[in-house]
Amino acid sequence: MKRDIYDEDHEAFRGSVKEFLDRSVTPYVETYAAEKAIPREFWLEAGKQGFLGLEVPEIYGGSEAGDYRFNAVLFEELSKVNAALASCAGIHADITAPYLVELGTDEQKQRWLPGVVSGEILLAIGMTEPSGGSDLAALKTTAVRDGDGWVINGSKTFITNGYSADLVIVAARTSPEKKARGITLFAVDTTLPGFSRGRKLDKVGQDESDTAELFFENLRVTDAEIVGELDGGFIHMMQKLPQERLGCAISNVAHAKQILEETVQYAKDRKAFGQSIGNFQHNKFLLAEQVTAIEVAESFIDKCVVLHAAGELTPVDAAKAKWWSSQVQNDVLDHCVQLHGGYGFMNEYRVARAWRDARVSKIWAGSNEIMKELIGRDLGL
Amino acid sequence: MKRDIYDEDHEAFRGSVKEFLDRSVTPYVETYAAEKAIPREFWLEAGKQGFLGLEVPEIYGGSEAGDYRFNAVLFEELSKVNAALASCAGIHADITAPYLVELGTDEQKQRWLPGVVSGEILLAIGMTEPSGGSDLAALKTTAVRDGDGWVINGSKTFITNGYSADLVIVAARTSPEKKARGITLFAVDTTLPGFSRGRKLDKVGQDESDTAELFFENLRVTDAEIVGELDGGFIHMMQKLPQERLGCAISNVAHAKQILEETVQYAKDRKAFGQSIGNFQHNKFLLAEQVTAIEVAESFIDKCVVLHAAGELTPVDAAKAKWWSSQVQNDVLDHCVQLHGGYGFMNEYRVARAWRDARVSKIWAGSNEIMKELIGRDLGL
Amino acid sequence: MKRDIYDEDHEAFRGSVKEFLDRSVTPYVETYAAEKAIPREFWLEAGKQGFLGLEVPEIYGGSEAGDYRFNAVLFEELSKVNAALASCAGIHADITAPYLVELGTDEQKQRWLPGVVSGEILLAIGMTEPSGGSDLAALKTTAVRDGDGWVINGSKTFITNGYSADLVIVAARTSPEKKARGITLFAVDTTLPGFSRGRKLDKVGQDESDTAELFFENLRVTDAEIVGELDGGFIHMMQKLPQERLGCAISNVAHAKQILEETVQYAKDRKAFGQSIGNFQHNKFLLAEQVTAIEVAESFIDKCVVLHAAGELTPVDAAKAKWWSSQVQNDVLDHCVQLHGGYGFMNEYRVARAWRDARVSKIWAGSNEIMKELIGRDLGL
Amino acid sequence: MKRDIYDEDHEAFRGSVKEFLDRSVTPYVETYAAEKAIPREFWLEAGKQGFLGLEVPEIYGGSEAGDYRFNAVLFEELSKVNAALASCAGIHADITAPYLVELGTDEQKQRWLPGVVSGEILLAIGMTEPSGGSDLAALKTTAVRDGDGWVINGSKTFITNGYSADLVIVAARTSPEKKARGITLFAVDTTLPGFSRGRKLDKVGQDESDTAELFFENLRVTDAEIVGELDGGFIHMMQKLPQERLGCAISNVAHAKQILEETVQYAKDRKAFGQSIGNFQHNKFLLAEQVTAIEVAESFIDKCVVLHAAGELTPVDAAKAKWWSSQVQNDVLDHCVQLHGGYGFMNEYRVARAWRDARVSKIWAGSNEIMKELIGRDLGL
Repeated sequence: MKRDIYDEDHEAFRGSVKEFLDRSVTPYVETYAAEKAIPREFWLEAGKQGFLGLEVPEIYGGSEAGDYRFNAVLFEELSKVNAALASCAGIHADITAPYLVELGTDEQKQRWLPGVVSGEILLAIGMTEPSGGSDLAALKTTAVRDGDGWVINGSKTFITNGYSADLVIVAARTSPEKKARGITLFAVDTTLPGFSRGRKLDKVGQDESDTAELFFENLRVTDAEIVGELDGGFIHMMQKLPQERLGCAISNVAHAKQILEETVQYAKDRKAFGQSIGNFQHNKFLLAEQVTAIEVAESFIDKCVVLHAAGELTPVDAAKAKWWSSQVQNDVLDHCVQLHGGYGFMNEYRVARAWRDARVSKIWAGSNEIMKELIGRDLGL
Repeated sequence: MKRDIYDEDHEAFRGSVKEFLDRSVTPYVETYAAEKAIPREFWLEAGKQGFLGLEVPEIYGGSEAGDYRFNAVLFEELSKVNAALASCAGIHADITAPYLVELGTDEQKQRWLPGVVSGEILLAIGMTEPSGGSDLAALKTTAVRDGDGWVINGSKTFITNGYSADLVIVAARTSPEKKARGITLFAVDTTLPGFSRGRKLDKVGQDESDTAELFFENLRVTDAEIVGELDGGFIHMMQKLPQERLGCAISNVAHAKQILEETVQYAKDRKAFGQSIGNFQHNKFLLAEQVTAIEVAESFIDKCVVLHAAGELTPVDAAKAKWWSSQVQNDVLDHCVQLHGGYGFMNEYRVARAWRDARVSKIWAGSNEIMKELIGRDLGL
Repeated sequence: MKRDIYDEDHEAFRGSVKEFLDRSVTPYVETYAAEKAIPREFWLEAGKQGFLGLEVPEIYGGSEAGDYRFNAVLFEELSKVNAALASCAGIHADITAPYLVELGTDEQKQRWLPGVVSGEILLAIGMTEPSGGSDLAALKTTAVRDGDGWVINGSKTFITNGYSADLVIVAARTSPEKKARGITLFAVDTTLPGFSRGRKLDKVGQDESDTAELFFENLRVTDAEIVGELDGGFIHMMQKLPQERLGCAISNVAHAKQILEETVQYAKDRKAFGQSIGNFQHNKFLLAEQVTAIEVAESFIDKCVVLHAAGELTPVDAAKAKWWSSQVQNDVLDHCVQLHGGYGFMNEYRVARAWRDARVSKIWAGSNEIMKELIGRDLGL
Repeated sequence: MKRDIYDEDHEAFRGSVKEFLDRSVTPYVETYAAEKAIPREFWLEAGKQGFLGLEVPEIYGGSEAGDYRFNAVLFEELSKVNAALASCAGIHADITAPYLVELGTDEQKQRWLPGVVSGEILLAIGMTEPSGGSDLAALKTTAVRDGDGWVINGSKTFITNGYSADLVIVAARTSPEKKARGITLFAVDTTLPGFSRGRKLDKVGQDESDTAELFFENLRVTDAEIVGELDGGFIHMMQKLPQERLGCAISNVAHAKQILEETVQYAKDRKAFGQSIGNFQHNKFLLAEQVTAIEVAESFIDKCVVLHAAGELTPVDAAKAKWWSSQVQNDVLDHCVQLHGGYGFMNEYRVARAWRDARVSKIWAGSNEIMKELIGRDLGL
């Protein structure tokens, strides 16, 4: 089904993103996977092209379009090349940068945003802890007042960009007795003493992203590193989650759609038992189902994008978009693997890597179970 | 998720439909089921309210709005009261009437359309035959040239409104050697000699609709009863199918959504093991999933409605809308039944009847398998 | 897959059941549905054949085989003819009779069992109440001590055989303060003053079974009508549930298997687009899947049957058998309906009625949700 | 559910397999994955323990038990440690060795079987070709008569044990005009000139197995290397497939069952939101469903094992066992991953690797689509 949410400006922007990817990324993306890292060149070049500042005001070097559809276009195109690109760029530009833009002081913005936009300051966000999973209210990392500063101790895990980030927004407990209402966000420079990282985590997929554990051992920061309100971190995070989940949803669908299109082509080209395998009725119906599933999901996500661009996306609609799209993505890709036969199990085939890459989308950014809990509550249940 | 395709005019129209239904239909709908018939009063009253002429030009008494969203509103509200109401009204006003409006001669329009709009001439369409199912090209009913007229012999089955229709558009083979290209449509007055009907079919659901077999035994018509082109019937039918399938899709989703909303309420009210059953996490998640499924489907159907209102809905998108929505409808209603426990198996509960009513939506108007065949072909498979 | 649990004796017994059904039941079963009742002749004739006394000692006229495989054969053959036959006979002979056999006093056995075996005393069991569903511990029907007797007040619903039963085992609260441990079973003669029945419930399926509400208004019984231990009813019921659930499972699979076999035949016979519809690859694969699903389920149920015949079936394995088989039954039958196209929606087709009949199997005898709760607890969760 | 197909002898054998695995394999299996190879020590040690000769007569050093249940026990225990161990040992001892045992000449048996049993001659089987997938009749590898020998040209892919095998049974076309009836099996010593291997394939899972492409370039063999009948290879392969598929099925279920048991334990141990995650009703029901699915599948596979031990397993029942078990395995493991949250995406967790390892089971040994084709044909469709 023809999409209708993008106009000429968005498509022109898409053209420039595609050109960048074709030229500077696609030929090298296998290297990223082999080295388990997106190189700094990617960030610097993307910054130069203006792709990292969509959420950042012009005064700090960004292009703050105020139209989330540009973000959507960017994440669609990144996902079509590689799921991890979208995840990593999303964490940097779409998820973490807004904390600085919306909650930061002028001084903080001046200190960090130009580097964020240029790709010199790579961002990550440290919410999840080894013991906590999706239960943010159970955070164990602490920031204890000490003189006019704070001493942070604890650890974070599953941190996308964690191995290479220059600045990490860290959620830490400042008022232990106040549960969710006692959490504060700190912007932590990763060159500070007391900061260390574990090894790059060995993941099922998204090898390109450098996911890591982060450790804070008597790491000292000052009030100038507090992002937003003291003890207001939980609410800040809750407010940012819809955009994060929508970003996931956009990437989920674009990623699966791209691989599905390639699979349809494969099913036309690949012969078995004397005909194209896509010509077998079982495969034909199956592909018809997958294409429908993608387009139906896309229509919902597109509607969310338009609502979010207008500032009207509710957290519960973002939750719906996130869980549904990740389920569709995983289901579609599983069928795409199957249609490739033995090749679907070989990492040199994009479909195989895409299948592995997608698995995390049902887990992260609030697991699908958490999404259903939110939706159920919204129903008054 | 908030819908965005309707404006004030549509909502005002919805209000008038609802008022009509609340006053003149809802209190009596159980009687319709018991008598396996929607009474003529329904049609006459609906006609008086202007609900039967949305596709008919004003010159013939209609209100041809030229905006399919009014049709969508009508079928949504009918479905919310009862699935068979939407089916029967759809066959009359949305599926069959357009054949007369778009293909009829001036004489035909004058002869029939005012009665169609007023509800005095109830319409049906005779495509399906006992041996043929979804395979229209295999039609066995024949119309043989005889002098300046035609003699029709054959039978049709599963004809909605068949038992009470005054005028039936019948597809008959006029050029036996030309397969699909040898079919002609005839408007058959059901008072003509040679026309007879079987009993009302005893269906799994939609008891209110009078579905019947129709028999044609040496039934004579003239050229004046040909609708559209001689031998052009197959193409005429193909062109009308997208609107029929979209109408199904609209009804499917509205029907399931209504019952789902009632089920959410039931899950709040019904207690077991000391709490509301909707409070059990399994049920809560399940309802969250169903609500998401409905809203996602609705976003796709809404997009189809807008496209169709603009004359741009493709047959393949209509096929996607039809199969997907009917699958969602049936899946959602099965869960709704389960949530009602033993009451879900009792016909006095709306949910039980809705579940039965919905089953046919995966079969009629081109089975879901036919839809997937169409989509697969569109993919080049 | 070839089954291996039955020997010659079982197959000989199967032959006699089949002969009885072919001769005395199958030709009339549509009448049962029309009259919403299995006639007394069925019971008397089945009694004469010895089919109602498999659980009853010879001394009372039964043939207590002590080998549950005979029961399994009986319910398989009944289900193959009609799901409600199996339900009603199951309630009488397999579910309710054992209460009298295993818990009854000699006097009770002499009073009732000969009639149970002959079909003159039709049994039902009254557990479920309108407000309670699967939550037996929340029973509201009371039996209050009055002199040397008891006065029963309350109501029961969804009672299979309820409209025609001569004797109902009724669970009533005798010690209100003791929750589950305060329930007693009473054998209530339905000719007693204070007993009344509601109308036959209008169900989604299983029209042949007469399901009814039962009302008890100051109904007086004596200690001689207590079945089992005073205040021991809950445990008595729990002990009988595995056999009830296994009986359901046997019927579920046999029912779906029979209809599936008929559907495979239909798919060979029915032509569309120039070939047998079973020849279309989508249908071929679909039928292959359904046949596998049935045989896999059957292998599990067969194992349960053997275990139960040896007195070793655990409640949790019975729970697994019940929920899994009912899910498979419903899924398979839904596909069978679809393969019949429009005819699948017509009640004159067995497949249509079978689909409706099956729906309750996911709900009754402890809903599938209750089964999963039991299994989860058994896992220590 | 308690299993009933194994007696004391089988369990004693299981004990010895377990002891071997605990001592000599489990501590090192991560190394196998890192080096993408099962080391020769594994084979020699397994040979010493007598685990490689279950299909080989005592005269050649084997322990030919004539009871397939020992094979089943072996593959269950291997799968519980690691899926690839079962695959590789299965290819060697259960799939390829029987070709030599059942079809080999005395000279061939003497030449190779002692080494097969001791682990000194590692076996592989070369059926699949790059262009062919599951379509064995389309083989392109040729063996052309030349003097009193044969010259083999062609290639094979996805060959388990391919990188380390000492002897490969290769299917080659000897009578090009005779399609399936023109294929012959040759036992190819991998030290022969003209034999070469591609790199170890980089697979989605089962890193431990060395899967490779094999190339044959003017490789010369004699009549003494023909296994079975000239031009009889296709039938020989068809006859061996049921055992291969049953072996897959046994491993599929044992593998998923082991990980499921570990996941149940994890769900008890892992806390979130103040309780064990297995205590959340959604997870509890989900685990109840998975346990049921495994036990139901297991009951079917067990029945197949007993039938196969008696020489009565049909190819179509083996096909059912293969596709059903691989589907259950993959579904169960996907849920197990989800229950582990972020850890489920980390390769250091067994569940993550198991999920990747399992994916191929729906593809190899005849894809599940091929299985359904076979079952459909058996139904006469």
